[in-house]
Amino acid sequence: MIVLFTDYGQSGLYVGQLHTVIQQYAPGTHVIDLIHSLPRFNIQSAAYLLPAYTQSLPNGTVIVCVVDPGVGGNRPHAVVRADGCFYVGPDNGIFDVLVQQASQYTVFHIDWPLPVSNTFHGRDVYAPVASKIHQSGDLDSLDCKVAVHRPTRLAADLAEIIYIDSYGNAMTGMRVSMLKSGVRLSVDGHSLPRASTFSNVPIGECFWYENSNGLIEIAANQASAAEIFDLDIGVKVSIRN
Amino acid sequence: MIVLFTDYGQSGLYVGQLHTVIQQYAPGTHVIDLIHSLPRFNIQSAAYLLPAYTQSLPNGTVIVCVVDPGVGGNRPHAVVRADGCFYVGPDNGIFDVLVQQASQYTVFHIDWPLPVSNTFHGRDVYAPVASKIHQSGDLDSLDCKVAVHRPTRLAADLAEIIYIDSYGNAMTGMRVSMLKSGVRLSVDGHSLPRASTFSNVPIGECFWYENSNGLIEIAANQASAAEIFDLDIGVKVSIRN
Amino acid sequence: MIVLFTDYGQSGLYVGQLHTVIQQYAPGTHVIDLIHSLPRFNIQSAAYLLPAYTQSLPNGTVIVCVVDPGVGGNRPHAVVRADGCFYVGPDNGIFDVLVQQASQYTVFHIDWPLPVSNTFHGRDVYAPVASKIHQSGDLDSLDCKVAVHRPTRLAADLAEIIYIDSYGNAMTGMRVSMLKSGVRLSVDGHSLPRASTFSNVPIGECFWYENSNGLIEIAANQASAAEIFDLDIGVKVSIRN
Repeated sequence: MIVLFTDYGQSGLYVGQLHTVIQQYAPGTHVIDLIHSLPRFNIQSAAYLLPAYTQSLPNGTVIVCVVDPGVGGNRPHAVVRADGCFYVGPDNGIFDVLVQQASQYTVFHIDWPLPVSNTFHGRDVYAPVASKIHQSGDLDSLDCKVAVHRPTRLAADLAEIIYIDSYGNAMTGMRVSMLKSGVRLSVDGHSLPRASTFSNVPIGECFWYENSNGLIEIAANQASAAEIFDLDIGVKVSIRN
Repeated sequence: MIVLFTDYGQSGLYVGQLHTVIQQYAPGTHVIDLIHSLPRFNIQSAAYLLPAYTQSLPNGTVIVCVVDPGVGGNRPHAVVRADGCFYVGPDNGIFDVLVQQASQYTVFHIDWPLPVSNTFHGRDVYAPVASKIHQSGDLDSLDCKVAVHRPTRLAADLAEIIYIDSYGNAMTGMRVSMLKSGVRLSVDGHSLPRASTFSNVPIGECFWYENSNGLIEIAANQASAAEIFDLDIGVKVSIRN
Repeated sequence: MIVLFTDYGQSGLYVGQLHTVIQQYAPGTHVIDLIHSLPRFNIQSAAYLLPAYTQSLPNGTVIVCVVDPGVGGNRPHAVVRADGCFYVGPDNGIFDVLVQQASQYTVFHIDWPLPVSNTFHGRDVYAPVASKIHQSGDLDSLDCKVAVHRPTRLAADLAEIIYIDSYGNAMTGMRVSMLKSGVRLSVDGHSLPRASTFSNVPIGECFWYENSNGLIEIAANQASAAEIFDLDIGVKVSIRN
């Protein structure tokens, strides 16, 4: 199984090209569009979403991870083997939270031998590399070397909005498992109660909860929390003990 | 074949998780995204679209149906076996029109044994249940019991806009087959002519027609009927004999 | 492999129906959504994108091409066999640039024997025809005859914006390979420098480049060129030697 995790936009011309390339390199492979609506150019947001949304994938899954404002520049092409899965993408910070949260990992840098466009490494490098890893089960068929992962710039958790879904629910980069019990959450001066699910609060009211992937998320029952609080990617939340 | 019918939004993080779960429970299954842009939280709209857009699916198809504002609450998990197909989702009214229009059906309630999140039953219950039905061809491997379907609250047809597509065409919940011939349709005080296809009216002009799934639909030739009449989900249409 | 290329919108009810029909006619076929966000009703835009985005598909690929404002009218159903691939869709001009750029091609017109809706020929004709071609490897199982392709109305290249992607990059219908070296590009009175990739210009600045499919494209580094210049489909660009 190859899983795609990008900021390409679901509906445009890029996702389909990834799929066609993968079918040429690894015919019949099951390919899943996990997300293509990552906030554009926002490496930090992708870095926090990546471990939360891939941690339960089965061993051997290959994840193509592309948020890459520096495409065509000289950051290396990386493969991270972490806790049984393979993550393929630019070594530009997108893997920084993943490796912090992983119980074990190795980072590889890849030399890709074929001609490559200046602006679409997802199609020209990462999809072929992912296909080859998927077919062989490892990196044997690739020209790669183990790389030292540079000191991490991102904290393991982030008290900011990192994603807003189509309902207007706003995810933070904080894992609930890292919180002390009894904490309070506030955003833009508003203190929010904790609830376990939507129907525990009146319609239209806001709360925070542990989302289905373990992150703190701000939501409203049958309404858009993002609209109510005018939330956007990067808005800070605060935690008070 | 498993078919997905939800209000999750096409581009976000939810649809891909359904796909990965299904591949874990039923590897290699062909999964089709029929729609993920159902009007949010709107059970009624989904209920009328469901039979219209699944009636021609082949026997044995399993349809995962999720519009579920009460997720985490105590409505039962249901499977409806109707006219050769299996429909899996919350028993919250989403199946009310389906069972009315079906020539035969049975409703089952399911006890799902594994841990479940409070907010994502599509991933944690309905996708696994659908996978098991798809693999066994029936409900044998599930802990289920036949349920009495409570009296139906929704009429078999609804003279309202229930969906607006990306062209701005507006579907109603009325089947054309239920109309007497020679009726007139009006919306917001405007009487609309019937036409059989777009090119039968001048560019920019509005009409109604039998859409390709048997519903009354309001459209305009190369323009957006929804914009012209400021239509939205829930707007009433009237039929005059 | 069957590839879909339409203006249906990714998220609505149409794409999924194409997929279900293909699985009924050709079970197990790998189907790829190349694009469903083609500019609506805009045959010209689709005509220029089609060869650019399908030229590298492997031999035998079947591409379903639908932008069809005249659906239900009397334009023929066509299959174009060009350079090893099969293109299926309405003969309404969508294939005009493809055949000009192809090194060899044949156009066929198809009589489809089964009942057809007035408004969804993609589902009722082109998806079944594509499935049959995919399964047999040719048109043998279809009722078709070679058609004379009428004189082409579209030039081989077009100095206009034909598509704007989700980043705000604006593609033209001009292939870079057709340009003399040293030309200058301007749009709306602004002269744009050429760059090979995004990171070669300062953040926020606009440039033009050869996109990964060989077309002239206007972009900005980590910003939306479409917003900066208020670009839209149909805006002219000019080339000065």
